[in-house]
Parts: sequence; C-alpha cells; structure tokens
Amino acid sequence: MPIKVVAFDGDDTLWHNETHFQLTQTEFRELLQRHVPDADVDARLFATEMANLGLYGYGIKSFTLSMLETAISVTEGMIPASDLEVILGWGKRMLQEPTELLDGVTETLLEMSARYRLLLITKGDLFDQESKLARSGLAELFSGVEILSDKHEDSYRAVLVQRGIAPDEFVMVGNSLRSDIVPVVEMGGTAVHIPYHVTWHHEHVDEASLPANGWHRLQTIRDLGPLLSSLKHEAGG
Amino acid sequence: MPIKVVAFDGDDTLWHNETHFQLTQTEFRELLQRHVPDADVDARLFATEMANLGLYGYGIKSFTLSMLETAISVTEGMIPASDLEVILGWGKRMLQEPTELLDGVTETLLEMSARYRLLLITKGDLFDQESKLARSGLAELFSGVEILSDKHEDSYRAVLVQRGIAPDEFVMVGNSLRSDIVPVVEMGGTAVHIPYHVTWHHEHVDEASLPANGWHRLQTIRDLGPLLSSLKHEAGG
Repeated sequence: MPIKVVAFDGDDTLWHNETHFQLTQTEFRELLQRHVPDADVDARLFATEMANLGLYGYGIKSFTLSMLETAISVTEGMIPASDLEVILGWGKRMLQEPTELLDGVTETLLEMSARYRLLLITKGDLFDQESKLARSGLAELFSGVEILSDKHEDSYRAVLVQRGIAPDEFVMVGNSLRSDIVPVVEMGGTAVHIPYHVTWHHEHVDEASLPANGWHRLQTIRDLGPLLSSLKHEAGG
Repeated sequence: MPIKVVAFDGDDTLWHNETHFQLTQTEFRELLQRHVPDADVDARLFATEMANLGLYGYGIKSFTLSMLETAISVTEGMIPASDLEVILGWGKRMLQEPTELLDGVTETLLEMSARYRLLLITKGDLFDQESKLARSGLAELFSGVEILSDKHEDSYRAVLVQRGIAPDEFVMVGNSLRSDIVPVVEMGGTAVHIPYHVTWHHEHVDEASLPANGWHRLQTIRDLGPLLSSLKHEAGG
C-alpha cells in the first residue's frame, strides 16, 4: 500500500533537545565537584534518573527533580540551599529555551506536507512538548499531534487504530532506535532513523539487536523526500 | 439531539486529589514555620505556583518544584538540604498515592457505560494522570481518554471535532466550575457540576459570573443517571 502518513518525532529529530540537557549536566557536574571533587556525578545522576523514571516519567521537570536529589545525596546533605536554587533556575532556563530547529527541517516538512498527512509523535512532558511545538512555528503542518508518556509498540498501535491508519501506510521518522525505530518496525510500519550527534544513554540500543528489515537510515532529514519516493515506487511496483 | 457522550473529569470528580495536596501543604507549612515562625507560607506558595504555571503547568512535579522554590525563598536560603530532601520525598509519596475513588463512582460509571459513550477528560501531568487512571481500575469503561495541558473552550472543541461529537450530544461532568463547567457551556455543551469538599484557590470562580443555563449541579455522582435521563426526555420531547 502506498505511504499515506509520515510521523515525526520532535526532540532531536525536528528540534535540538539533548544538547540542552548535556550543557546543563556539564554545569551540574562542575557545581557538585566543587563540593565533592572525586564524585562520579554523571553516573549518580543517571542512576537517580533511572530509579525515578517509573514515578516521574520523561522531561525537564523530572530531570530537575533528579538533579536536586542527586545533589543532596552526592554531598550527603551538605550542599547549601543557594546551590539548589541555582539548579532550580537551570530547569526553568531549559523550559524557556527557544525551539531551535535542526537543519533542513522547515523545507522538508513543507515539502512532505504537500505529499502526505503529517503527524507529530513525541514522548515526554505534555505541557513542555506542547509549548515547544507552539514555539517551533511548525504546528500548522501537522494534521495531528500525539504526546505519549512512552513509545512502545502498543502505544504506536493505539495511535494508528484511533486514527484509522494501516501500519503499511505509516512511516515514522526519528532519532531514537529505541523509541522511534524498533517499536514501529515490530508493529509492521516503516521507520526512518536519522541519528542526532548525541544520544541520551537511556535511548541506546545495541545495533546487533535491531530488526533486519523495515527501516532505513539517513544522515539528514533533507534526504527524506527521495527515500519516501523510492519506497512508494517499490510498494507500487 | 439526545446525549451520546458523557465525559468525566478525573481529579476530585472520580478520585480524591486536592485533599492529598492540602495534607502535604499542611506539612510544608509546619516545616517552614519551624524556620520562619511568622511566614505566610500558603500565600507564598500560591504566589510561586501562579508565577510558575506558565512554565511548569499543573501536576505534582510542578507542585514539588514550587514547594522547593518557596522553601528556599521563605527561609532566605537558610533551609538545610535535609529539609529539602523531605520535600522531594513528599512529592514522590503523592505520586505513589493509591487512586482512591469517590463514593458511588464505580456503580455510576458502570451504569453510564451501558447507556452512553464515556470519555475521561482530565488536565495535568500526562504521566501522572495515566498512572492514576491505570491504578483506578476504571480504564476499560472509557472509550477514550484525553489528557489536556489545560481546559479551555478551544481545547474542548478540539476534542469534540477530532472525535466527531456534536456539542449538543455532549455532557461534561466535573468538580471545577472554571475547568469543567464554564468552557463546556460556552462551547454549546451541557455540564454537570459535582462540587468536591475542597477546591484549589486557582480553580475558584465567582458564582455571579457563571452562565445562566446549560449546566446543572448535583451533590453526588449517584444522581447522574436520573439527571441525564431527564435531560434526554426534555431534548426528545
């Protein structure tokens, strides 16, 4: 069946995200190492984030709460409140960061929106993702927006059922093998992986465990149009 | 047109919520007054929450971040990290609180689900609301779930358009005049107000400013069936 619907992930597919987390994490490491010079801040923060994931979910507010918890725990409660106030301020700064689009996104989405129905399928904090989309200037190009608390095979299937989309008419485009590629291929859709230059450790997937077929990799979103045209040709031929 | 779809708010309509916030806020007040005995903690916290609403949105994580900020500011940075750790723990406790249904909810929803299509329309934190719904045991009674970042006339209209529901087939049931009643009546739907015994200050609406028609008030959700039957009769007669 020809492709009808092309869905895009948001964070690190359409706009920069992980770089903001990593910049803040660098400041966080420096702040804590002033109190505990030999602390492995990154490992401690990651462990806290993973322990809190089932309770907090994804997003900047969760990250801020996990930074605060890590700061208190790494310093054994010796960190002054003024430093914790600085961390709260980093969270607010991240929430206000302008939505900075990746290279080629606007042109590609404009072109794709003339050929396919476009969806945005992101995960994370509802309020934050809506706010980023509003600031992106891209909202009108999407015929629908789905903000999921997590991206599993079942959550993709529910979106497709509710919108009356067959898996073989559906293409998902994203930077995360774990969230955008593997579950979509498992569900019978097609996925296009466009790597971002940094990936959060939690999103890493061993390449050996990836599906053999059903997905493609591009270096830039600018190559999406030609790829989708070639897929349609295959499917139609 | 006869009623086809009955939508329910979640927090303080189907399950207890505000009481958990108020219990935590009492502990928070006592904690801060140990440091600053004459501080007006409630006013300071509310001001912080309102200042942060546009950045954080609703929900327990936002509330926790605003408590931490208020604690640092009220004590002028003198609060020890160990007390802030206690506040972080309150947030986690609230996130794990069992979903405690209000009296009559299960029976009423079971009865209504045999007569109407049921929707859950809540606002707040996506992850937290999904988790509460999952723990409520009610998820299977709803044909759809909408978690909105805020409840305005436009957000209700978008839900109805996407689901192909006409406003005059739609009834919204909830405890908040501001979020569940006023915007629904303005959109041309019918609303049923079931007050909860406590209301967050932010959700208060001056009774004089309420729409004259288009909504009803019940003391308990148990009276919903008879009310809806009488409305159908009116509409059909």
